[in-house]
Amino acid sequence: MASTNKGILERLDAGEVVIGDGGFVFALEKRGYVKAGPWTPEAAAEHPEAVRQLHREFLRAGSNVMQTFTFYASDDKLENRGNKLTFTGAQINEAACDLAREVANEGDALVAGGVSQTPSYLSCKSEKEVKATFKKQLDVFIKKNVDFLIAEYFEHVEEAVWAVEVLKETGKPVAASLCVGPEGDMHGVPPGECAVRLVKAGAQIVGVNCHFDPLTCVKTVKMMKEGVEKAGLKAHYMVQPLAYHTPDCNCQGFIDLPEFPFGLEPRILTRWDMHKYARDAYNAGIRFIGGCCGFEPYHIRAVAEELAPERGFLPAASEKHGTWGAGLEMHTKPWVRARARRDYWENLKPASGRPLCPSMSSPDGWGVTKGHADLLQQKEATTKDQLKQLFDRSKTH
Amino acid sequence: MASTNKGILERLDAGEVVIGDGGFVFALEKRGYVKAGPWTPEAAAEHPEAVRQLHREFLRAGSNVMQTFTFYASDDKLENRGNKLTFTGAQINEAACDLAREVANEGDALVAGGVSQTPSYLSCKSEKEVKATFKKQLDVFIKKNVDFLIAEYFEHVEEAVWAVEVLKETGKPVAASLCVGPEGDMHGVPPGECAVRLVKAGAQIVGVNCHFDPLTCVKTVKMMKEGVEKAGLKAHYMVQPLAYHTPDCNCQGFIDLPEFPFGLEPRILTRWDMHKYARDAYNAGIRFIGGCCGFEPYHIRAVAEELAPERGFLPAASEKHGTWGAGLEMHTKPWVRARARRDYWENLKPASGRPLCPSMSSPDGWGVTKGHADLLQQKEATTKDQLKQLFDRSKTH
Amino acid sequence: MASTNKGILERLDAGEVVIGDGGFVFALEKRGYVKAGPWTPEAAAEHPEAVRQLHREFLRAGSNVMQTFTFYASDDKLENRGNKLTFTGAQINEAACDLAREVANEGDALVAGGVSQTPSYLSCKSEKEVKATFKKQLDVFIKKNVDFLIAEYFEHVEEAVWAVEVLKETGKPVAASLCVGPEGDMHGVPPGECAVRLVKAGAQIVGVNCHFDPLTCVKTVKMMKEGVEKAGLKAHYMVQPLAYHTPDCNCQGFIDLPEFPFGLEPRILTRWDMHKYARDAYNAGIRFIGGCCGFEPYHIRAVAEELAPERGFLPAASEKHGTWGAGLEMHTKPWVRARARRDYWENLKPASGRPLCPSMSSPDGWGVTKGHADLLQQKEATTKDQLKQLFDRSKTH
Amino acid sequence: MASTNKGILERLDAGEVVIGDGGFVFALEKRGYVKAGPWTPEAAAEHPEAVRQLHREFLRAGSNVMQTFTFYASDDKLENRGNKLTFTGAQINEAACDLAREVANEGDALVAGGVSQTPSYLSCKSEKEVKATFKKQLDVFIKKNVDFLIAEYFEHVEEAVWAVEVLKETGKPVAASLCVGPEGDMHGVPPGECAVRLVKAGAQIVGVNCHFDPLTCVKTVKMMKEGVEKAGLKAHYMVQPLAYHTPDCNCQGFIDLPEFPFGLEPRILTRWDMHKYARDAYNAGIRFIGGCCGFEPYHIRAVAEELAPERGFLPAASEKHGTWGAGLEMHTKPWVRARARRDYWENLKPASGRPLCPSMSSPDGWGVTKGHADLLQQKEATTKDQLKQLFDRSKTH
Repeated sequence: MASTNKGILERLDAGEVVIGDGGFVFALEKRGYVKAGPWTPEAAAEHPEAVRQLHREFLRAGSNVMQTFTFYASDDKLENRGNKLTFTGAQINEAACDLAREVANEGDALVAGGVSQTPSYLSCKSEKEVKATFKKQLDVFIKKNVDFLIAEYFEHVEEAVWAVEVLKETGKPVAASLCVGPEGDMHGVPPGECAVRLVKAGAQIVGVNCHFDPLTCVKTVKMMKEGVEKAGLKAHYMVQPLAYHTPDCNCQGFIDLPEFPFGLEPRILTRWDMHKYARDAYNAGIRFIGGCCGFEPYHIRAVAEELAPERGFLPAASEKHGTWGAGLEMHTKPWVRARARRDYWENLKPASGRPLCPSMSSPDGWGVTKGHADLLQQKEATTKDQLKQLFDRSKTH
Repeated sequence: MASTNKGILERLDAGEVVIGDGGFVFALEKRGYVKAGPWTPEAAAEHPEAVRQLHREFLRAGSNVMQTFTFYASDDKLENRGNKLTFTGAQINEAACDLAREVANEGDALVAGGVSQTPSYLSCKSEKEVKATFKKQLDVFIKKNVDFLIAEYFEHVEEAVWAVEVLKETGKPVAASLCVGPEGDMHGVPPGECAVRLVKAGAQIVGVNCHFDPLTCVKTVKMMKEGVEKAGLKAHYMVQPLAYHTPDCNCQGFIDLPEFPFGLEPRILTRWDMHKYARDAYNAGIRFIGGCCGFEPYHIRAVAEELAPERGFLPAASEKHGTWGAGLEMHTKPWVRARARRDYWENLKPASGRPLCPSMSSPDGWGVTKGHADLLQQKEATTKDQLKQLFDRSKTH
Repeated sequence: MASTNKGILERLDAGEVVIGDGGFVFALEKRGYVKAGPWTPEAAAEHPEAVRQLHREFLRAGSNVMQTFTFYASDDKLENRGNKLTFTGAQINEAACDLAREVANEGDALVAGGVSQTPSYLSCKSEKEVKATFKKQLDVFIKKNVDFLIAEYFEHVEEAVWAVEVLKETGKPVAASLCVGPEGDMHGVPPGECAVRLVKAGAQIVGVNCHFDPLTCVKTVKMMKEGVEKAGLKAHYMVQPLAYHTPDCNCQGFIDLPEFPFGLEPRILTRWDMHKYARDAYNAGIRFIGGCCGFEPYHIRAVAEELAPERGFLPAASEKHGTWGAGLEMHTKPWVRARARRDYWENLKPASGRPLCPSMSSPDGWGVTKGHADLLQQKEATTKDQLKQLFDRSKTH
Repeated sequence: MASTNKGILERLDAGEVVIGDGGFVFALEKRGYVKAGPWTPEAAAEHPEAVRQLHREFLRAGSNVMQTFTFYASDDKLENRGNKLTFTGAQINEAACDLAREVANEGDALVAGGVSQTPSYLSCKSEKEVKATFKKQLDVFIKKNVDFLIAEYFEHVEEAVWAVEVLKETGKPVAASLCVGPEGDMHGVPPGECAVRLVKAGAQIVGVNCHFDPLTCVKTVKMMKEGVEKAGLKAHYMVQPLAYHTPDCNCQGFIDLPEFPFGLEPRILTRWDMHKYARDAYNAGIRFIGGCCGFEPYHIRAVAEELAPERGFLPAASEKHGTWGAGLEMHTKPWVRARARRDYWENLKPASGRPLCPSMSSPDGWGVTKGHADLLQQKEATTKDQLKQLFDRSKTH
């Protein structure tokens, strides 16, 4: 698919489906290039071949958007709790922009630069200080001339509005994506109201990403759309959920699940779950459809295959995938060949192979929120004494 | 870890732990380069950068063995059931050898060339014909001078013995790995007896790979070891299991599970399951410890981290991984920091998030074996009529 | 516990806990005296010793209310769909009243006569016709001088209000209990509004019974209480839930679960679940606390044991039960003796022993409601043709 | 069904199916008449109406055998660990015999007197002492002239052989039933060998009861039958399993499951599970088919309904039960009427409604066996110190 040179708003205004990419942080953690805990994206500078390869896999799977691998790359975050890096945030962001552009140009994709919620906000810094952090990150996106900007992964709509206000000053299209569910943001602002505030702040595209499974995220964006329409406003909608089933989450999402982040495997969605997700999102009127943590290239390919009738083409990676399991027609065992059909996979209820495990968990979450002492960030590593206090406390929850 | 120039037998004779790599076919299917059904490895020639990257990730995770990505690359398999390729088996195998060598030389790893069970055998071809197929595959391994040879993924010990006999003629070290469980091979030959036959045929390393989960595979290799020792023979032992929980498999393994191959996600082992696997395998006296389908780089890293005390060093990728979750000490939420400890992850029973799904399945398997009409291979694609017959039949099972 | 001669309102006005009985229909079905499907209570006349024994077991377990075993005994129901009986509704009701009184007098219990929703209402008969059905049932309760009346198991608050209006004419205390959940009645009237209507119609006690598990029922009664208090009214509250876990029910309750009525075993609450239920109900301000389908005598005993501190005494049957498992102190195996403690049973997550089964189901329910042809009642048995139509239709759901 | 006056051996020799009864201890515990922990049967004397009613329910459900409610009624057991009773073992046994006879005479049933394993044996008393305990229990069976004798619930075949030797002296038919699974008795004697020893000791009927689910018990009796036939001997076979699914048990059975005895609800078999059990047992050549702990009257009725074609009649209680759910043809909701068919219930995989619970457990069991200090019996109640030691110890397992 050669480049069409169309911008994000042109595509969405024309009613096209825009397919996002998947979750770089989680995928690269499994590949050995990102450290769980700090989750920082220094791999863009340290191991560019690994980041480039993942971009290519998503492009091949059907993605129209290459998000620069700059998640959480504000310098204050880079230094949090003892994390030591040999690159500055600017160096990492520049490398990430170059990689995204290089691969985007190999196909029909746009480059998006993103900013996310800041430790500064959680530590109750002022609007001015928080906005200054966003501005610093923007420098490189302007210098590298990304195609549009995304303010994503915000738990508090107030901070997201601040981010949109900063991003709008660049003149580039702005998308705003919260990491909230149907119960709304951490201050209880409902999704419809959140969306209205973001649109009023100037976001042309609004939606949610991360924290919840596809079902929950699509439901939340529907509530946003209803809010925006009820307010007499207009917007495009985006959704980039987890690739994990999270029916048992509370309002703070999957981070509170006991399985986060190293025991989430049994929750990973199958490609068939993704077909359902893509169809639901499309039917809800969402046109920017992608993924977040847990999304591997084959998940994005499933989205692209489900929406191939609407888009008019299959992604490149489908040369190695028979739709709805058709490749199994070539399997050696006859009972496996018998699985080469849509209704088999649509109706399968896959077993976990884990008879000692439950199907749902009770989320953690100690009832602390913005401004609480436990949430204050620090540059030094967590000490042994601090850890011991945490362990002891965890036993009483 | 720079190369030590030590061969596979030198290492094992010295009591070293040799860590294998993971599952190329499944990992590359998810990345978009292998087609499920035929499962052929043409990506080695078509998309070398993708194969090279995966080799590098396993090397970085601790692998000492780079298996050439030549699984099932016999020409008769390449042509099975309508699969169309632009490369010959030889071309693919040569490219695969070059890639494995290139990456092996970047660290302390050996290159292993492998042959697997053939459709010819299932279709009841003669020993001579089957052996000729193996010989043809060997040409490229000799030309490219691999470090040792593996006859792996054999369901019938008879065919594996034929393979070992062919491989031995090269003068290179030979490992032999069956895809059987504690019930033995498809003719009912028990694991201990299988191992004895393979050792007598000349294999210096024996074990199992694929088809079953780590627990089951380690148990099977223990039975092999007991058989070999009881027979007064000597050998080294290897194990390369699935990264899927398969407590519900029958003797033919995970292919018969209803979830194979597109609904296995809930069964994927966590990194903590891998710690347990590595320790169990080590305690059982196995020293060549790797993985097969489902093993991603982080699974191999977990094996290397568990055995770091024995090996004396951590793998390169551990620079991005705190042992037993230590990286979470840097997480922003205190209840996630409280998970930065071994006993938390060792005792976690991870939920599936799938309340409508069971924990175990009833395997398929129509009771057909070697020589049955349904198992005959064909070059042409499966026809619609043939598929309809299979679907109808599947309903009565 | 000798009789205190106090009426139901006297007890509740004094702040006493009144413990209801359990589910006669389901318990006697398992004992062989009630037919699932028609669920009619002819056993009161046919096998009085079996009904008397069950009354005694509940009395012994702590029940203060003996509900006459007259559920659904309106004549139109007795004749529905081919059910053939040798007793009239009046004969059954008289026998049932005598049995309840006989056992109530053996302890400190009251006799309650009950009426339930009628097939007439579902078949769209007029208010006058429906009320006439209730009146007919009342004759025997008056003649036998029950202590109070319960209008229970109503899905539509409109019909329940009609029932209360009829019952009020007797001058006896009237309780009204719907079989609805938090979503309200089948016309969508929310629980708070339902309760207000029932109180205004004259019910002194309002609440819910059947259809949902304890957690859901207590939540619903809390909503009723909030509604009544918000309306400036006063009432007492009752709850008599299922003894089955039903987290997966939709608004119509457990009848729509695929397991109803012959596969509910895995959902049966343990006695420890009942402790939690009793405490939750008490904390919610509910003082008439009993059970419905699935409640066996030991479930009621658990309610009475949990509330023993408030009531000041244990039930008779506790002579055969150590609180929180204390009886296990006498077990022969030491690891079973180690289970003789509260925290063991409170924290146990009991396994199903059913690895091929899910933890939740998708409810049936064909979207038909009051007045739909499929819901019309008929005296004749369902014909084979009618059944075939149902089976075919069930496959498309 | 009027009495046929045929003895147990006459019936079995004629090839008849003899249906046993269910589990008195567990059923009466739930009804409030037996204390879990000591599990003693004083209710036969204290609350005869409750015991009589349960006998009647089993008779009505199809039982041909009324076992006297004398399980574990040796005096040394009655006094174990602080249990206080107002009746002697002899008084209880006499009352139990009278009740069993009274009800047996109401239909076509026989009275069986039983003895079980003794605390004396576990405490390493001599053969003479253990046999004296059995003899003492026999006095009342002889005096009350039971129809035959059962030595049941033995974990050690040695003790069971001693029991058979004592019972044989009475001249009555003797059945011997172990509580072991496919792994054999607690000393590792395999089922086939156990059966041979029992037959040689004089038992005319051999089999297993309690401790395992129907599937496991039928499998064990098949192994017994093979052993007996291989030894050139002849016997009849009996099976009386649990009504709980126990796929996760180790060799000591359900007592070691964490759910024993107060959290077993999710494991209770449905009536449809019982149909399968009855058919499997019949097909295995077993003709004395009953139940043990957890079997309620409707479970026995399901056995009798499954074997109605072979027996030629339905049990009395089937007047209140439509075979395979046929009674649902009379249900008011059409989608419930659609469940009135065999294939619906045969294929249902019932959900637990417990998403936080696993499907299997890890059994306890501290590796102590006969003669270990922890297993010694004592007359005094377990002290607080003893309990504390147990609790502490349980945390390390």
